[in-house]
Amino acid sequence: MTIALSPNASAPLAPPASIEPLVVPDRLLLGPGPSNVDPCVIAAMNQQPIGHLDTAYLAMMDEVQELLRYTWQTTNPLTYAVAGTGSAAMEATLANAIEPGDRVLVCVKGYFGHRLVDMAQRYGADVVAINRPWGEAFSLEELTTALAEHRPAVLAIVHAETSTGVCQPLEGLGAACAAHDCLLLVDTVTSLGGVPIFLDEWQVDLAYSCGQKGLSCAPGISPFTMSDRAVAKLERRRQPVANWYLDAALLRKYWGPERVYHHTAPVNLTYALREALRLLAEEGLDARWQRHRQIAEYFWSGLADLGLSCHVEESLRLPTLTTVRVPDGVDAKAVSRQLMADYNIEVGGGLGELGGRVWRIGLMGYNSQREHVDTLLHALAAILHQVT
Amino acid sequence: MTIALSPNASAPLAPPASIEPLVVPDRLLLGPGPSNVDPCVIAAMNQQPIGHLDTAYLAMMDEVQELLRYTWQTTNPLTYAVAGTGSAAMEATLANAIEPGDRVLVCVKGYFGHRLVDMAQRYGADVVAINRPWGEAFSLEELTTALAEHRPAVLAIVHAETSTGVCQPLEGLGAACAAHDCLLLVDTVTSLGGVPIFLDEWQVDLAYSCGQKGLSCAPGISPFTMSDRAVAKLERRRQPVANWYLDAALLRKYWGPERVYHHTAPVNLTYALREALRLLAEEGLDARWQRHRQIAEYFWSGLADLGLSCHVEESLRLPTLTTVRVPDGVDAKAVSRQLMADYNIEVGGGLGELGGRVWRIGLMGYNSQREHVDTLLHALAAILHQVT
Repeated sequence: MTIALSPNASAPLAPPASIEPLVVPDRLLLGPGPSNVDPCVIAAMNQQPIGHLDTAYLAMMDEVQELLRYTWQTTNPLTYAVAGTGSAAMEATLANAIEPGDRVLVCVKGYFGHRLVDMAQRYGADVVAINRPWGEAFSLEELTTALAEHRPAVLAIVHAETSTGVCQPLEGLGAACAAHDCLLLVDTVTSLGGVPIFLDEWQVDLAYSCGQKGLSCAPGISPFTMSDRAVAKLERRRQPVANWYLDAALLRKYWGPERVYHHTAPVNLTYALREALRLLAEEGLDARWQRHRQIAEYFWSGLADLGLSCHVEESLRLPTLTTVRVPDGVDAKAVSRQLMADYNIEVGGGLGELGGRVWRIGLMGYNSQREHVDTLLHALAAILHQVT
Repeated sequence: MTIALSPNASAPLAPPASIEPLVVPDRLLLGPGPSNVDPCVIAAMNQQPIGHLDTAYLAMMDEVQELLRYTWQTTNPLTYAVAGTGSAAMEATLANAIEPGDRVLVCVKGYFGHRLVDMAQRYGADVVAINRPWGEAFSLEELTTALAEHRPAVLAIVHAETSTGVCQPLEGLGAACAAHDCLLLVDTVTSLGGVPIFLDEWQVDLAYSCGQKGLSCAPGISPFTMSDRAVAKLERRRQPVANWYLDAALLRKYWGPERVYHHTAPVNLTYALREALRLLAEEGLDARWQRHRQIAEYFWSGLADLGLSCHVEESLRLPTLTTVRVPDGVDAKAVSRQLMADYNIEVGGGLGELGGRVWRIGLMGYNSQREHVDTLLHALAAILHQVT
């Protein structure tokens, strides 16, 4: 029996010529992200979804919030996961912090600082950017001077610059911001779960991260938090947040006790994030930070043995992401291509000012393992031996 | 050996008291969404991520685009998946179509029409809303009259209103919009993959959907498309799209041949969506639409046997989502609670005007099966027998 589909139903266009069942190659992901995911996280994700208002799901949301607070070392009530990748959580902090005309001071020392400038401008901010060369950090004095000079409503800075491998010291900055009635907004994409972060102690007002990298969840769900000071600014807004999907004034009613429907949650990714954070809590932050530090130092020492040097001085160097200088005469892209072709290892290339000058090597979360360092150093040694 | 973590490292706060490994209850999801996912889709998702610039991933993106074009029956080059849930794709169409001051005509006949109004206002649109009661559709004549009266730059309408169960006829509307130099923006969240859609034949300029429901992918990744006319408006913009994450001018450079990095993709969800769309193409649109129609008619006939009636007249009734009238004297919420407690079946309640007056029953994608209809009707009969 054929059923009339609609009064003027056409016959559909033909489907694409044979698309085969999915085959995913096996890669060791040692670039700036995504990193490999803990197999337990994949197992958690590998289940049927349940409803986003199911009591079992609501309980899971509470657990995710509690675990995120631990991971960030904050007691912020407004702490939840954004239903998008890290860039969505980045935009969420700006969208919720900025009203048109607000002055925003962005501290640029790499690619993601530039992106903060771009995003903030789209929300009508009066953006002032200060700059440091790619591979350096700002001093507290520079930042304090800029605060006094520009009197911003928000100061935005990247803790762990994924494009340079620099860890920006943050101690003291929150107090300086508070003294100028300025909110401190921090990117912790490449630091959360791998590098010490004390959000409350540092008086950070808005922060975001990604699910993958240091947390070892699959990409697509991302941590977000706002302090009570930031929430107070949100509550004083004269106009709604210029972004419905990321509006914290709506989302807090879904993540909070009211449970007002906002959007259909990425349920399977919530399973994954909960498991990733649970594993992190089980390991303990202190142990996890030390593991990342030890594995990074083991890697740096192996690089030195190969005659390779790091772009960032050791006191500012991220354990999660290392920028390795490309030796003179070596084609950075050719080496990366060969790592992929012959060893199934992904590493990142340089961005912007560092294009062609560094490789970016991530040792994050589940991938922060001595075995992976050995595998990579062995492969690098073999390739560099051929080309030099 | 203990490593100093930072000059003033504090000891981290303690982790939350024991959070157990994840246990997900087994639910039959027959509400407005999410629906259960095809087990093959879960298997596809159940793999390690690869890089978002990996050649294998780029090939997968091309396949997803090709499959989405088939599913929507369009040849739009700018067709891709947004890294968020359906609400993000909804916002993407508005963000990319609207410049501040543009008049947007929103046709409201349910909850999601109201949401289009809210979102469009956030992008500075001059919004004009026209209304129909919840459970009805607009006639082509009403819409053509409104076009002539309001001369909008964009007309936004929901094809399948998830809050009412109405399928809005769209034949002829695209031509009327084009004649008024207006872009036609259509919500296909609860129709794509379950109800006939011919995007090009209908001259639709912007459309979005979700990955779950009719496509049976896990939630968190969502179809989006723009016609060449809509792209031309995007290219004429005087100011950038007021949303970085959803900016099609940036995303087309990642999904197109340039492959410019934008954000880290939700890699595992891309695996899932590709598999969901591949299964759809394997079944064929015609067969899939007929399956949804047949299963819905079987359900409606079973409802009649129980003495239950549908809120929407049959000619406008969606096969994917049925609004079932709550009999007089029956507590809608109590019945839903009992379906969940005793049978692990999720159904939706009424929203807005229909609160307490209907149940919303979804039979979408993988869940459009005769066995599920039997299970639900059996459970409903037993519960209603107790309470009436």
